[in-house]
Amino acid sequence: MNIVTTLSVNEKKQNDLMSLFKNEAFHFFSNAVEPTGELKEADVVVTYGDDITPEMIKIAEKLKWIMVMSAGVDKLPFQEIKKRNILVTNVRGIHKIPMAEYTMGMMLQVSKHLQQVTEQEKSHEWKRLSMNELYQKNVCIIGVGAIGGQIAKLCKAFGMNTYGINTSGKEVEFVDEVGTMDRLEEFLAHADFVVSILPSTQDTKYLLTKRHFQLMQETSIFINIGRGDVIQESVLLEVLNEKLIGHAILDVFENEPLAKDHPFWGMDNVTVTPHISSITSRYLPRAFAIFEENLRTFKSGGKTLINQVNVDRGY
Amino acid sequence: MNIVTTLSVNEKKQNDLMSLFKNEAFHFFSNAVEPTGELKEADVVVTYGDDITPEMIKIAEKLKWIMVMSAGVDKLPFQEIKKRNILVTNVRGIHKIPMAEYTMGMMLQVSKHLQQVTEQEKSHEWKRLSMNELYQKNVCIIGVGAIGGQIAKLCKAFGMNTYGINTSGKEVEFVDEVGTMDRLEEFLAHADFVVSILPSTQDTKYLLTKRHFQLMQETSIFINIGRGDVIQESVLLEVLNEKLIGHAILDVFENEPLAKDHPFWGMDNVTVTPHISSITSRYLPRAFAIFEENLRTFKSGGKTLINQVNVDRGY
Repeated sequence: MNIVTTLSVNEKKQNDLMSLFKNEAFHFFSNAVEPTGELKEADVVVTYGDDITPEMIKIAEKLKWIMVMSAGVDKLPFQEIKKRNILVTNVRGIHKIPMAEYTMGMMLQVSKHLQQVTEQEKSHEWKRLSMNELYQKNVCIIGVGAIGGQIAKLCKAFGMNTYGINTSGKEVEFVDEVGTMDRLEEFLAHADFVVSILPSTQDTKYLLTKRHFQLMQETSIFINIGRGDVIQESVLLEVLNEKLIGHAILDVFENEPLAKDHPFWGMDNVTVTPHISSITSRYLPRAFAIFEENLRTFKSGGKTLINQVNVDRGY
Repeated sequence: MNIVTTLSVNEKKQNDLMSLFKNEAFHFFSNAVEPTGELKEADVVVTYGDDITPEMIKIAEKLKWIMVMSAGVDKLPFQEIKKRNILVTNVRGIHKIPMAEYTMGMMLQVSKHLQQVTEQEKSHEWKRLSMNELYQKNVCIIGVGAIGGQIAKLCKAFGMNTYGINTSGKEVEFVDEVGTMDRLEEFLAHADFVVSILPSTQDTKYLLTKRHFQLMQETSIFINIGRGDVIQESVLLEVLNEKLIGHAILDVFENEPLAKDHPFWGMDNVTVTPHISSITSRYLPRAFAIFEENLRTFKSGGKTLINQVNVDRGY
């Protein structure tokens, strides 16, 4: 079996994989452009999911399985994939710990004015500013699944009140109140923190509008760790220029990487991070653990791989 | 009854107090130097506890109760207080929420390289660095009481392993393993985070030595939110210059404010904060709630005030 990777895998891990799966031929690349010849023979492609074009699917005429080492699969050419009946799996589930830690880190950074504390430190200034607390604050989590549930768990430990939106409105552990989209406005109106973890789908694109931010408090903090297109960037810019809310922490954008001259970079009420909320030193080990288990199943002709993506639904 | 405050109380709160306790005479000052005349007549002094001198106790010949709006009472002139049998109460217990939040904020700031993320943001640099996780890391809490217990609670929610030192060795909720001082070295050897919350007493002064830091890992992070004199500052400086550990987060110092030319300010492996771990917008409201309840008891001749300090023990 020919396995092509389009993400960089360090030498140690390459050797691990080759010794774990002695009968398979691994072709390690660090991007999807180089391996044209190898793609033609590939049975499996391992990718972050943002580099696969419709043309590549055509070239990879033997391709049966795409292992996406990410949760977002919105960049995949689903039409071609569906036509060919190619299996798609992702690594959803491994994001919840790092992304929840990132979220709490950012909530605390803003609430505790830690950037200001750092500035004072740089000028050797001993000035006792007063911080805010997370305790008893309200958080509204839009898209409360595995990741949102982990955020809710941490928020509850901090004594926060948790509200969540999902498609079913069904109860979620650690979320005080769960509703479907029709309760979003109600939840937003009293939220101190609003966290969007929505993937990019037809239903979620531009789902948030200016009106939603008008409903929030002047001090509310918006955190986007889902996908950038949950709100039109020009609208979010308006919201922030008009200071409808207190602060936005943006890890995802409509166009990534964020252009060097984008106004978000320089705004006092915006924190920009380069789509890193899930990236920790433990990300790839966890992702490869899923890949390896799936590869064993796939080799033995097993039908149910971990985290199979519904190709019709797109997630 | 004459009540003298030596900390600034805003006008709204002054009016609240005067209307709550109509029969008492309040004398509001923002320091302990001004109210010489008033001190002579004072029955009660409300203070942060770091401004009361032996001379002031002598002047305040009617003084019966010192309400310390802080947890640390180590700066009080206990000899004079004991001689006169003056009651001392503090506000221990109200620190646990802000101090635990500060601690998690700092653990996340260092683990997630958030200062570096901010630097990149300033130069509009989209560079995806890899962060670390708190998940499954070990924390050793030296002095695990109310505050340490709250830190342990949060650490457990993050999936960390918690170890704690206290004087009894008795179990504490959310602490996986509790020991007395004789287990400190064992706990330190595998701790990723070491948090000292020790007060300053005869037993804790210079309790930590270079040897303790030699036992820690090169990557360990030391967080001091207790009192600065738990380690001699010159020794800590040596430890950090020799990079025996990864990072120190220092909120307390042997001499505060930290001198403008102190080397700690400029060190890459040190984060200095100006003794703010407990200061949030909710600090004074909580502290006054305790004072008000105690004042009611005190007025009615009640004997047991909240948080009475053992004058012999000094805490």
